[in-house]
Amino acid sequence: MTQYVYTFGAGEAQGNANMRNLLGGKGANLAEMNKVGIPVPAGFTITTEMCDVYYKGNCQYPPELNVEVENGLKHIEKIMGKKFGDKKNPLLVSVRSGARASMPGMMDTVLNLGLNDDTVQGIIKATGNERFGWDSYRRFVHMYGDVVLGMKPESKTEKDPFETVMEKVKVKNGLKADAKDNEMTAPMLKELTAAYKKLIKDKLGKEFPTDPKEQLWGAINAVFGSWMSERAIVYRKKEGIPDEWGTAVNVQSMVYGNMGNDCATGVAFTRNPADGDAHFYGEYLINAQGEDVVAGIRTPQQITKAGSQKWAKENNISEAKRKAEYPSLEESMPNVYKQLVDVYKKLEAHYRDMQDMEFTIQGGKLWMLQTRNGKRTAPAAVKMAVDMVKEGLITKEMAVGRIEPKSLDQLLHPIFDPKAPKKVLTKGLAASPGAGCGRIVFSAEDAGEWKAKGEKVILVRIETSPEDVAGMDAAEGILTQRGGMTSHAAVVARGWGKCCVSGCSDIEIDYKKATLKIGSTVMKQGDWISLNGSTGEVMFGKVPTVEPSLAGDFGQIMKWADEIRQIDVRTNADSPKDAKVARKFGAQGIGLCRTEHMFFDGERIKHIREMILADDVEGREKALKKLLKFQTDDFAGIFEAMNGYPVTIRTLDPPLHEFVPNEPENQAIMAKEMKISVEKVKAKVDSLHEANPMLGHRGCRLGITYPEITRMQATAIFTAACELTKKGLVVLPEVMIPLVGTVQELRNQKAIVKEVAETLIKKYKVEGKLHYKIGTMIEIPRAAITANQIATEAEFFSFGTNDLTQMTFGYSRDDIASFVPEYLNKKILKNDPFQVLDQEGVGQLVRWGVERGRSVRPDLKVGICGEHGGEPSSVKFCHRLGFDYVSCSPFRVPIARLAAAQAAIEHASERAENLKLQNHTPIRAKASEIEE
Amino acid sequence: MTQYVYTFGAGEAQGNANMRNLLGGKGANLAEMNKVGIPVPAGFTITTEMCDVYYKGNCQYPPELNVEVENGLKHIEKIMGKKFGDKKNPLLVSVRSGARASMPGMMDTVLNLGLNDDTVQGIIKATGNERFGWDSYRRFVHMYGDVVLGMKPESKTEKDPFETVMEKVKVKNGLKADAKDNEMTAPMLKELTAAYKKLIKDKLGKEFPTDPKEQLWGAINAVFGSWMSERAIVYRKKEGIPDEWGTAVNVQSMVYGNMGNDCATGVAFTRNPADGDAHFYGEYLINAQGEDVVAGIRTPQQITKAGSQKWAKENNISEAKRKAEYPSLEESMPNVYKQLVDVYKKLEAHYRDMQDMEFTIQGGKLWMLQTRNGKRTAPAAVKMAVDMVKEGLITKEMAVGRIEPKSLDQLLHPIFDPKAPKKVLTKGLAASPGAGCGRIVFSAEDAGEWKAKGEKVILVRIETSPEDVAGMDAAEGILTQRGGMTSHAAVVARGWGKCCVSGCSDIEIDYKKATLKIGSTVMKQGDWISLNGSTGEVMFGKVPTVEPSLAGDFGQIMKWADEIRQIDVRTNADSPKDAKVARKFGAQGIGLCRTEHMFFDGERIKHIREMILADDVEGREKALKKLLKFQTDDFAGIFEAMNGYPVTIRTLDPPLHEFVPNEPENQAIMAKEMKISVEKVKAKVDSLHEANPMLGHRGCRLGITYPEITRMQATAIFTAACELTKKGLVVLPEVMIPLVGTVQELRNQKAIVKEVAETLIKKYKVEGKLHYKIGTMIEIPRAAITANQIATEAEFFSFGTNDLTQMTFGYSRDDIASFVPEYLNKKILKNDPFQVLDQEGVGQLVRWGVERGRSVRPDLKVGICGEHGGEPSSVKFCHRLGFDYVSCSPFRVPIARLAAAQAAIEHASERAENLKLQNHTPIRAKASEIEE
Repeated sequence: MTQYVYTFGAGEAQGNANMRNLLGGKGANLAEMNKVGIPVPAGFTITTEMCDVYYKGNCQYPPELNVEVENGLKHIEKIMGKKFGDKKNPLLVSVRSGARASMPGMMDTVLNLGLNDDTVQGIIKATGNERFGWDSYRRFVHMYGDVVLGMKPESKTEKDPFETVMEKVKVKNGLKADAKDNEMTAPMLKELTAAYKKLIKDKLGKEFPTDPKEQLWGAINAVFGSWMSERAIVYRKKEGIPDEWGTAVNVQSMVYGNMGNDCATGVAFTRNPADGDAHFYGEYLINAQGEDVVAGIRTPQQITKAGSQKWAKENNISEAKRKAEYPSLEESMPNVYKQLVDVYKKLEAHYRDMQDMEFTIQGGKLWMLQTRNGKRTAPAAVKMAVDMVKEGLITKEMAVGRIEPKSLDQLLHPIFDPKAPKKVLTKGLAASPGAGCGRIVFSAEDAGEWKAKGEKVILVRIETSPEDVAGMDAAEGILTQRGGMTSHAAVVARGWGKCCVSGCSDIEIDYKKATLKIGSTVMKQGDWISLNGSTGEVMFGKVPTVEPSLAGDFGQIMKWADEIRQIDVRTNADSPKDAKVARKFGAQGIGLCRTEHMFFDGERIKHIREMILADDVEGREKALKKLLKFQTDDFAGIFEAMNGYPVTIRTLDPPLHEFVPNEPENQAIMAKEMKISVEKVKAKVDSLHEANPMLGHRGCRLGITYPEITRMQATAIFTAACELTKKGLVVLPEVMIPLVGTVQELRNQKAIVKEVAETLIKKYKVEGKLHYKIGTMIEIPRAAITANQIATEAEFFSFGTNDLTQMTFGYSRDDIASFVPEYLNKKILKNDPFQVLDQEGVGQLVRWGVERGRSVRPDLKVGICGEHGGEPSSVKFCHRLGFDYVSCSPFRVPIARLAAAQAAIEHASERAENLKLQNHTPIRAKASEIEE
Repeated sequence: MTQYVYTFGAGEAQGNANMRNLLGGKGANLAEMNKVGIPVPAGFTITTEMCDVYYKGNCQYPPELNVEVENGLKHIEKIMGKKFGDKKNPLLVSVRSGARASMPGMMDTVLNLGLNDDTVQGIIKATGNERFGWDSYRRFVHMYGDVVLGMKPESKTEKDPFETVMEKVKVKNGLKADAKDNEMTAPMLKELTAAYKKLIKDKLGKEFPTDPKEQLWGAINAVFGSWMSERAIVYRKKEGIPDEWGTAVNVQSMVYGNMGNDCATGVAFTRNPADGDAHFYGEYLINAQGEDVVAGIRTPQQITKAGSQKWAKENNISEAKRKAEYPSLEESMPNVYKQLVDVYKKLEAHYRDMQDMEFTIQGGKLWMLQTRNGKRTAPAAVKMAVDMVKEGLITKEMAVGRIEPKSLDQLLHPIFDPKAPKKVLTKGLAASPGAGCGRIVFSAEDAGEWKAKGEKVILVRIETSPEDVAGMDAAEGILTQRGGMTSHAAVVARGWGKCCVSGCSDIEIDYKKATLKIGSTVMKQGDWISLNGSTGEVMFGKVPTVEPSLAGDFGQIMKWADEIRQIDVRTNADSPKDAKVARKFGAQGIGLCRTEHMFFDGERIKHIREMILADDVEGREKALKKLLKFQTDDFAGIFEAMNGYPVTIRTLDPPLHEFVPNEPENQAIMAKEMKISVEKVKAKVDSLHEANPMLGHRGCRLGITYPEITRMQATAIFTAACELTKKGLVVLPEVMIPLVGTVQELRNQKAIVKEVAETLIKKYKVEGKLHYKIGTMIEIPRAAITANQIATEAEFFSFGTNDLTQMTFGYSRDDIASFVPEYLNKKILKNDPFQVLDQEGVGQLVRWGVERGRSVRPDLKVGICGEHGGEPSSVKFCHRLGFDYVSCSPFRVPIARLAAAQAAIEHASERAENLKLQNHTPIRAKASEIEE
């Protein structure tokens, strides 16, 4: 029979850290911590399998689960020496979700479960602490009411109904409405508990459940139910987590951080998750329960003294005041602090990674409630990885493998220009680094809508909640009034590499008026604001940005990645400027140089229009001759920037109508400039119109119908190449014929290019010095299918996966907005295939193309130049198919370098596994090794 | 060493009929006739291989050819007892081309070669016939001047320069300019010869060559050269003959039809090539050479007496006049006629097919110069095939295999309504059957240009020449003033199944004024005219047409084809009317019923527009409800017409913008009708605009974003199906989801259709009686690639090879006119892939689709519904891949039935060959048997 419940406690556990798929991350680590001797309250985990069984069984449980849960409770009771529902010494439990992948704040939690009017008396008797008893009870009713019974605010702008009741009780008892919770006395909390229960009865028409078992099953249902909540679904979609994974449920004996001033609760990181600094870091609250820290309601205190002093300085708090009001754990509870330091060191060494831990201190005793590999910003990830290699904790390969390639984006994109004038309005917590600049919006809905309209927005909230994740995703940055470094906003933003300034208490937000007041500055919805997530600065208007540095730890990781990876990374660049940027990012040549972009500038567009309007070859050749000079200079600049590296130049690709104006007014201007009648211009433009330009007269179809265009371009390429070669540069031109679907097309165009090349090489006397290749873009399905024919002529293939995806799916990139978002919603597509290469469909064509091409030309050079060339999973796919290189936009070059290295690591370890018994492991994968 | 020359003569030959690829059709049959004892003048054939060697070797011959040709000449000299170039008894030869495939009139011929001022005297002495000597000489100089020396008219309208000289000589000698050639006496012909030679010297600046060897090599060069002449290239393109095949050269001893009145030359068919009638048929000219008959300059006489009498009746010639002036060969040379009858019977029995023969009678002796399987009209082919099976000459399989499927077009398309009022202007020869109706043009160039503009044209010429073939191809029909049933116009038109009326001597053509005068009627370029190629009638204006009969011999061939073929043939039909027509043509169900065509009629378009304009699901459902009734009725009509046969219905496919008007004036009408503002209409139309509608929001993408559309269509289909099933009809609906690229799309739409179907089947209580399938169109490359996934949901695949070709090639059908014609010209494409399925590219995807689909669902039903479903080579491809059916437009159903039968015959014989040693030969091919 399948085991659905796994117990842990008192240094023993049925599970371990490797069972994360079954027990969820939290459950697996709770088991593991028991095994390595860390103090953990006893408990049990209901498996993720049960979640799946539950959803597949129409939200019903199999009968055996009840027995297993009962046994689990007995296990806890035995270890803790308490009884669930007992009136004298009752066991209280927490019920928490815990999925395979961390989903911070997404899932539901219920604490202090097991309380009712009887057991609360037992707690009070057992602890001798009346206030604690009622504080726990009111917290439980509130939490259960919210999570299990669905007592939520009716609308976003409405207050939590429990908050309203609490304020009333406070005022009634002579406190201010916004008095701190710990100012409330035991009788007040008792009154509050009763008021909460009345609120629930009034609203739901039935009594709050008093049977602890009923409470337990309600909470288990709520956790499983939360897996399919809208906010969890949105989060999973963004993170790419499958619905089938499910969540586990952890039922664990309560320990109390809220039992008095020798109690506390906190969150800690073995290293700083924001900048990667190798110092213990964390926050805690005295006499509080865990959710108080995470929810960001009270400003937490620092764990280390150094951290505390730094914090005070940043917040302009005097040392005396800090010591008195916000002492560090190191100062307030030195013994417990030492225990905690031992624990964190043990855990980091055990897991060989930075840990994100939750703990509770009850009566001076430390209990660990959770540990996990901590989320971190990209700079922190890079710094930690490099540091850990230096410390001997991990290998270079582990370091390289640990950086999420996509996260490098944060390190590569501009930061605010430190020298730029800026008007700093205020400063909050530097919760997630980066530069964010956009228009102010005040709700997640608005953020989404404005983004959809193409606006950049900054989401400004008093605090964020899991309901806001979609809006946070849409925003350039997040600014919150409340909440610390571990608040919801901070954790989520860091995970996504999005800029966030949190806990910015100087700001005043008026949701109704949609205004943000900072000091005397009042800004309204739509005004521009800039956030620096690395300093916490909030700035007025748009602040200019500068390029990031690529040295230091980042450079080190890249160096290791380059040592490990086996395929080259080139860039797509159309100008000498782009080529230079890409070289800085480490590009090893150009994989795609689009020549048409060169035609739009100033005078050039006139000549190309003159060519288009010409009635015969002579007219076209005359116009092309004028373009030749420009093109030759462009290519010379690019070759110079890429001295010693190959440069793949694609001959003219877009349909000619892209060069002529469609609007009558522009046609009139063109007619005037060209000294011809408007009618003639209009007639030509009309004759060039196409029903489906994507599938029309473009690519090599142009070069075949107008061979003079190809001839001019080849002349420009080889004139520039010959001249630079004569000057001693190493020029490696690779001429790429686009949109080839039949070998005959390539043969036709190759003959033209080759004839021009050979003539110029002879003329410049650079025989044997200038080496070039002629190849083709594989971007039409038929080209991939007949690659064995095409490779008889092509010296290289470059997969143009943008067009290949368009034609393989039958999707016009320009038109998919009307259905692809719906397809993603309905799970008809897992990813937008223009972002992530569709390995099952398009990838098959790529695979066939490589296999068939190399079957007739084993040394065929193979690359990719679609946008997928910079997408990590696609890069890994290319590695496995035995590509020679990937090519991507300059800013994605480092991402591709890292992804290529990871591909090599993953592939080598898999293959080492597979080929264990063989004597050799070839370095490069053959395409045929990949299964279909 | 390769043998380049094959000799024949005196009942022996080095070649035979099976060597047609090497010796050309003419050479192979000359050899074969020798072997079966038919009198053939001795000669030799230079192989087609030499043609290839010649073109690959830069128009040079290998040295050994000279030796072989010398030996060939000696062989002829020995048999004929004459010597080439001898002054006393000179051997004269003919030099003729002869390719693998017949190319009537396309290639060059030189007769009487070997004559000069010396040898002509030898001929005169040897024959004692001075006139014959000079007649042969002047013919030779003329022909050689034209063919070898290139003495052509400067322009189309200019006269042949030799004709002008001849007229001058005639007039100078007291004859009329248009006197018949045989009125010229020996001295006149001698004078003419000298004048011809002077003409050549004046024009070319050098003497006419006198050395017979030089003449021979000049003629051989000219024949090989003619293979690459423009007209030959055009003809081959139309007929699909590869350039590499090359032509052979036949050098053969001359025999003379022009040596006196006991001499003649003629052309004969063993059966009538126009109607298939099983009677000997042919034409001859007394005292003439072969080219006089073929060129259509003199009106030839009939070979049989019956034929002659029929001809006289048609031409209103009295029996007395006929006997005196136009006697048949049967009457004029009864002995030779008997020899000829013996020969034709022998040849037809030997070749088991209708023969087209050329012969010459010299001094009462019959010589055969050529035999070949005769071209024939489609009705003649059908009649002959059926007759020959009845006669026991051939098997049913041979009969079925012998009909060119495409030629059935002629039998299936409308003929003129016999009851329609028509104004017959005149009557010519019924040279090629069919109804042709179009605007008059007078040159091949005009025909091509008008056709390109979408006009239907009738090409009207005094006579046609090989230069006119492109224009003939463009025309609906051809009308000539001169020329018999075997004239160039007649032969070419019959080969193409194009209507032709030839030898219509009543008409007057003025090329300069561009007028056609028939009696008192003067018509000008662009006027409408109708030709009946089956009766020879020339009618004024447009004459209405009626459906053809499908019974008789045609029905018999179709019956045999149906017995033989293994795959079903369905039709593409969108209305009950089309469905009924298709049933008459033998369609076994509907393979594609496009539902969108039903939306354009009258009121329906309003409802669909209402749906498009609706802002929400409710609005759309309201509009769809109004369409439901119409769709239900449509489907009921179609199901009724196809009672007992499957009907594949495709759900809505085209993008919604096809249903709304683009032009402001129509938008205004629509706004008025729908009682909304023009702005709203315009805004909606604009919002539906797509950059590439082919790759946009259409197909199942519509059904997924608007599930209510699919639901309405499913409701219509199954309401109609259930109601008819209740009435006792057998309804077999197959619902086809279009444009599927992922299995998830199909799953989504299938769920909707299935739910509707099951609900209605239950409601109508027709469980177990109504059987239906849900499947998909495979028209997106990704669908073919992932067919193993898609087949888990699809119960059938229908390959939509139109779209599949568009996406596999990246060709928009609407836009290819700008480059595909050039691609065909430059041989980049062999065929337009929208007409003939591209087996190498698109066909691979089809193959993978079938293989992968059946790998997970062995009983997957597979069909094709693109236009290729009616194209014979594509049908054969489908047979080999194991398709269950092909589907095509109603008029192509018989073509597909025949092609499918031929596929089965060809495939069975190949496989019998391959599997000789095995015990069993499975009936249907598995896809995997086909090589890639």
